Amino acid sequence: MIVRRNLSWRGILHYTWKSLLYYLLLAVAVYLAHDHYQVAYLSMPFNTVTIFSTALAIFLGFKSNNAYERWWEGRKIWGLLVNYSRAWTRQVITMMIPEIEADAPAVKELQRRMVYRHIAFVHALRVFLRIKHAYNETDQEEIYEEANRYSDIQAFLLEDEFQAFYHKNNPPNFLLELQGEDLQQAFKRGWLSDYRFVKLEDTLVEFNNIQGMSERIKNTPFPRQYSFFSRVFVFIHATLLPFAFVSELGFATIPVSVVISFVFLALDLVGERTEDPFENRLEDVPLTALSLTIETNIKEQWGDEDFPVKQTTQEGIVL
Amino acid sequence: MIVRRNLSWRGILHYTWKSLLYYLLLAVAVYLAHDHYQVAYLSMPFNTVTIFSTALAIFLGFKSNNAYERWWEGRKIWGLLVNYSRAWTRQVITMMIPEIEADAPAVKELQRRMVYRHIAFVHALRVFLRIKHAYNETDQEEIYEEANRYSDIQAFLLEDEFQAFYHKNNPPNFLLELQGEDLQQAFKRGWLSDYRFVKLEDTLVEFNNIQGMSERIKNTPFPRQYSFFSRVFVFIHATLLPFAFVSELGFATIPVSVVISFVFLALDLVGERTEDPFENRLEDVPLTALSLTIETNIKEQWGDEDFPVKQTTQEGIVL
Amino acid sequence: MIVRRNLSWRGILHYTWKSLLYYLLLAVAVYLAHDHYQVAYLSMPFNTVTIFSTALAIFLGFKSNNAYERWWEGRKIWGLLVNYSRAWTRQVITMMIPEIEADAPAVKELQRRMVYRHIAFVHALRVFLRIKHAYNETDQEEIYEEANRYSDIQAFLLEDEFQAFYHKNNPPNFLLELQGEDLQQAFKRGWLSDYRFVKLEDTLVEFNNIQGMSERIKNTPFPRQYSFFSRVFVFIHATLLPFAFVSELGFATIPVSVVISFVFLALDLVGERTEDPFENRLEDVPLTALSLTIETNIKEQWGDEDFPVKQTTQEGIVL
Amino acid sequence: MIVRRNLSWRGILHYTWKSLLYYLLLAVAVYLAHDHYQVAYLSMPFNTVTIFSTALAIFLGFKSNNAYERWWEGRKIWGLLVNYSRAWTRQVITMMIPEIEADAPAVKELQRRMVYRHIAFVHALRVFLRIKHAYNETDQEEIYEEANRYSDIQAFLLEDEFQAFYHKNNPPNFLLELQGEDLQQAFKRGWLSDYRFVKLEDTLVEFNNIQGMSERIKNTPFPRQYSFFSRVFVFIHATLLPFAFVSELGFATIPVSVVISFVFLALDLVGERTEDPFENRLEDVPLTALSLTIETNIKEQWGDEDFPVKQTTQEGIVL
Amino acid sequence: MIVRRNLSWRGILHYTWKSLLYYLLLAVAVYLAHDHYQVAYLSMPFNTVTIFSTALAIFLGFKSNNAYERWWEGRKIWGLLVNYSRAWTRQVITMMIPEIEADAPAVKELQRRMVYRHIAFVHALRVFLRIKHAYNETDQEEIYEEANRYSDIQAFLLEDEFQAFYHKNNPPNFLLELQGEDLQQAFKRGWLSDYRFVKLEDTLVEFNNIQGMSERIKNTPFPRQYSFFSRVFVFIHATLLPFAFVSELGFATIPVSVVISFVFLALDLVGERTEDPFENRLEDVPLTALSLTIETNIKEQWGDEDFPVKQTTQEGIVL
Repeated sequence: MIVRRNLSWRGILHYTWKSLLYYLLLAVAVYLAHDHYQVAYLSMPFNTVTIFSTALAIFLGFKSNNAYERWWEGRKIWGLLVNYSRAWTRQVITMMIPEIEADAPAVKELQRRMVYRHIAFVHALRVFLRIKHAYNETDQEEIYEEANRYSDIQAFLLEDEFQAFYHKNNPPNFLLELQGEDLQQAFKRGWLSDYRFVKLEDTLVEFNNIQGMSERIKNTPFPRQYSFFSRVFVFIHATLLPFAFVSELGFATIPVSVVISFVFLALDLVGERTEDPFENRLEDVPLTALSLTIETNIKEQWGDEDFPVKQTTQEGIVL
Repeated sequence: MIVRRNLSWRGILHYTWKSLLYYLLLAVAVYLAHDHYQVAYLSMPFNTVTIFSTALAIFLGFKSNNAYERWWEGRKIWGLLVNYSRAWTRQVITMMIPEIEADAPAVKELQRRMVYRHIAFVHALRVFLRIKHAYNETDQEEIYEEANRYSDIQAFLLEDEFQAFYHKNNPPNFLLELQGEDLQQAFKRGWLSDYRFVKLEDTLVEFNNIQGMSERIKNTPFPRQYSFFSRVFVFIHATLLPFAFVSELGFATIPVSVVISFVFLALDLVGERTEDPFENRLEDVPLTALSLTIETNIKEQWGDEDFPVKQTTQEGIVL
Repeated sequence: MIVRRNLSWRGILHYTWKSLLYYLLLAVAVYLAHDHYQVAYLSMPFNTVTIFSTALAIFLGFKSNNAYERWWEGRKIWGLLVNYSRAWTRQVITMMIPEIEADAPAVKELQRRMVYRHIAFVHALRVFLRIKHAYNETDQEEIYEEANRYSDIQAFLLEDEFQAFYHKNNPPNFLLELQGEDLQQAFKRGWLSDYRFVKLEDTLVEFNNIQGMSERIKNTPFPRQYSFFSRVFVFIHATLLPFAFVSELGFATIPVSVVISFVFLALDLVGERTEDPFENRLEDVPLTALSLTIETNIKEQWGDEDFPVKQTTQEGIVL
Repeated sequence: MIVRRNLSWRGILHYTWKSLLYYLLLAVAVYLAHDHYQVAYLSMPFNTVTIFSTALAIFLGFKSNNAYERWWEGRKIWGLLVNYSRAWTRQVITMMIPEIEADAPAVKELQRRMVYRHIAFVHALRVFLRIKHAYNETDQEEIYEEANRYSDIQAFLLEDEFQAFYHKNNPPNFLLELQGEDLQQAFKRGWLSDYRFVKLEDTLVEFNNIQGMSERIKNTPFPRQYSFFSRVFVFIHATLLPFAFVSELGFATIPVSVVISFVFLALDLVGERTEDPFENRLEDVPLTALSLTIETNIKEQWGDEDFPVKQTTQEGIVL
Repeated sequence: MIVRRNLSWRGILHYTWKSLLYYLLLAVAVYLAHDHYQVAYLSMPFNTVTIFSTALAIFLGFKSNNAYERWWEGRKIWGLLVNYSRAWTRQVITMMIPEIEADAPAVKELQRRMVYRHIAFVHALRVFLRIKHAYNETDQEEIYEEANRYSDIQAFLLEDEFQAFYHKNNPPNFLLELQGEDLQQAFKRGWLSDYRFVKLEDTLVEFNNIQGMSERIKNTPFPRQYSFFSRVFVFIHATLLPFAFVSELGFATIPVSVVISFVFLALDLVGERTEDPFENRLEDVPLTALSLTIETNIKEQWGDEDFPVKQTTQEGIVL
């Protein structure tokens, strides 16, 4: 996530230079052909492009909107994870109550295991979500968060749990299964009443929902039929522009058509970069920062003080 | 669902060639009549079409948006099915507890039946939703998922249950009824407390909701009055275009009016193809892939390892 | 609800012929006055109308969108009724449990009464919603569902219940009151535990919500200030069009201005017809079909087989 | 709320005559100056205004939409009040059960008090919401509901409760507090189990939410920065129009610019009048009618028959 | 939050004068160069800018809409805080019941502590949210609420609680932790049943959600890629305008291009100022006023009468 107010033009060029070069060369070519070699039929009245532009602007508006919706939904889901992580920690601490005094240390130990396993769940979900799909590859060099490995989780799990976890098809779901089994144990030993058992299980269902909603956004691209056509239409539009401008604008065709084409390109690209919030890149929902916030909150609630330190990859960027 | 970033132009032509041919022939005819046979009154000032184009663009924007909403809602519903399937499996495993040790194998057996019956429910819902409505027929040849038969479900049910299931008016709902009756049995035998009985029944209500919401989208087309008029207006618009272009563009009328008409056609068609997410075709919400994910997750939670294998119909397509 | 893909032009004319006739006569008059009688000041530059057209298109887009939202919300509410009807039936069957064997027949009888009374509730709500408001009268002849009388409900209620029901101010709400009282009876006799009593009462609250949400849409028209102005603006716009076209288009003014005016009229009318989903007419949410689906599902769950037969009023229409 | 299909032009003039007069005088002045006194530089090419018009139309579309959203949310909230009032009444009647027969009359009396106190809550909330904020004053004469005084509530409360109620900072909230205390009493006497106590308290939380959501809309105007600029832009736009029209339209400038300005003014005003749904004026959500519906429903459920009579202020208007 | 209906032009100039000066100087320069020094190629046909304007208007519409959504969501969240604060107070008062009469004073004392600690939570959340992020700094002088310090909270907490609170990483969350621990104590002493314990804990989860949702909006700026480009496009657009106007409008270029540029600037700025609702500035959601309302409501419910006094910073402004 970018937090500084201005983007760097260098960064923008990094993503757009190929298209800009095409716009420039085309405009120069059309201008030379029309004005210097007098190829008159290269010109086309401006009105021709207007209706296309309006339709395209509306379509890009639709796309921007839905790209933002996806991103914001991703952020909301992780907001829920923040909220319920705090609630889970409090509930584990206050609702698991030893029936006899002698059980107190065992209860404490179980609580600790469940609270730390939840930190593991949060980090595991982050790592799980940021694994790249081959089909999302764009051959673009990206800024990314390097610390994204399951080994980050090892410290929060028992060793055998970590080994089992590591080989699962769906590792985060496995951790929720373990939490459920520990709840059953606590219930059987009388540390949870029937009712409090179900209450804590309800909170686990929230985590199921949070995980599943994140997976939905991760695994379902914005329908390709929409993004493909928006890309194609921006290209066609940019290709028509210099022909529409050349007879009226002369030399000014070159800067003006490049600028206008850039506007439409930017609208398209901004959507394209925002629509997938879990790709481990610049515009991501900041999963690493959020995970560390959760870790800090949970440790503070539990009474530990070895808070993790957030690292900054680059100025004005939070990953 | 299409996951590769680019559509194939061959595929696009497959759906649009009839319209494109019409646009081409019309443009050629108008051009010849106007320029070669000098039928001057065939031309019409460009402005005439502009207001129509804006209104049409807005209307198509509205349609694209709602088509996408329907599709995304379909995906969300099946996301819920993923989440609650995992939760159901965990709840059946951790909340059904034998009162006496001797009951343990019977409880285990009942848990297994209920967990597998849920896999059956998921596949049954997929098959049920992908049965085609006669009124949605378009005489278009489609890419579809062949493995869509109730017999896929047989392995997850007892034989007599499957026979009864097969002849029901609403087979998936019948499976939920069976789950409810098994919960009652477990309650009567003391394996579920009053409170946990109701908790599991609550999860069944979630499945009622998931099934019913899917049926709602399946059985309620986007209001025909909207899609009919969008189709008609795109046709009228395309028909007016060459007349508006011919006097100013001359020969260029032919490519330009075909391209612009194609843009509006594409906007309409993209909506048309996206609005029904359960039609067993290319743009579907990928029910088969999702069902197999759920089957895998459930089996992993239960401890089985015979995970199903996802088959790829065509590169870049997930069904 | 219209399910066939194409509307009939005859039907469209049925709703629009008066306006179309006005457009035609006006265009002819303007054309004759301008071209034959040379009343030059009747013409007006085209640009004048453009800004009006854009504003109108946006306003109609807003209206179409909200009309569809209302309709779709109506459909969603009845979707909830489908889901919770299935859940209610299952819950009544599995959660009401005789304390002693001797009570079994009485429990069975009570269950039957409550399940059938729910069918009565569904049909009653349909009839209740489809009663017309005087202020919604348009003097338009409509296709409607004739079988819409409270007497349809008689078979599902005890005779004295039906008599009381019939004279109530709010008949469907009376049925929910009866259900609540029967739950209390079951609780007092020990067939429901405290907890299951409340669970079933919760499901009744869902029905309160479903009924109330339906009434909200039924009794609150889309704000008249919006629909009145959209109607007026479409009229003004159509009235200005021929003046704007006549000097540039000549004879073509007549077809072109009628077509463009029709486009805006259609956008307005499509919204107008869609915004009220419970009016017992062509574009309704198909309450009759949905009620019969629910009746069938409930009977199947209860074990009866005398499923109702859906009748088709007209091809491609579901009411 | 207006229910008749057409607004009266007299009413429309009541709200717009000042602006219309300004438009008229301006257009006449510009026309005279330009055509009679030949002040040529008063004219301005039409295109200049076009881009402004499009931006304004989009901005007004945004405003219309959100004004309607606010109004519709207000209506939804009061719809919830209808639903939960019915549910509350049923729950009080069926869930409060005397432990011994001798308590039956006392239980009945408590139920009656709580049911009637809820009627008081509904009316109190209506009166509370319709008190005007000084900052919303527009110096416009309005049609309003006169029967809007706390004394309407007296009949539904005990005398001392009413006195206390009357002097509270937040009177409706005080009634919910009383309901909660009566629930506690019922619980202490054994008429409510632990579980049913909490269930009824849950319903009170719904009323907290309903009240709070209504207050949110009432006390938070649509951000003034938006509505101020829409008003200013409509004014600037109308001021530019005659200059843009005058050279091409001549005398027709006068009617055409007044009509077009009126269209934009109407779009703005319709939003302005709709955005605040609890102002005791023509376009309000019909709180009085809804309160009386709730009173009728509750009395019918309780078995009383002295239903209140709805009064009509003016034809086609429901307040 | 601004409640008076009109903004002051002085305030508007405060935020826009730099841009307006640029527009003015540019327009004057272009006008002089073109008309006095005859630099003909400085002019550009108006149509060139039209398509840019439409795209920009749509993009700004999108931005306005989402800025308002963020602001309104912030207001909704604090509305929830109002509702659940009232509910919490009632629940603490009615649901915590001494088992034996002798406990009554201790229960009362605990209730008081929990009710007042909740007031502390509300104020703490306000202070916590209004701490500024360095990256949101704009070097703009702002009107703000000065009374925004944690010391405001001291009166509502025990002294040692306040000290601990003050040094926490996340102070409001710490207060919820304390509430949870007090609930556990009440449960252990028998003042809460198992079921009522969980019910009150549920209300704490609501506060977790309210806090977390507020933090989400606070810590996640509207994606910078959107706001950066909208700012840049408004600048480019304003820069092109005088070139497009100069040949047709002559001297009028100066006022007209400044006015039109101002319209687009205002649309952009209104969004920019609205999108962050917790910045302690003019357009904020009025957290201070809301906190004081909650404090008043809670004290009224508890029976205290030392209501806080709301202070007005400036006329027509609520902070």
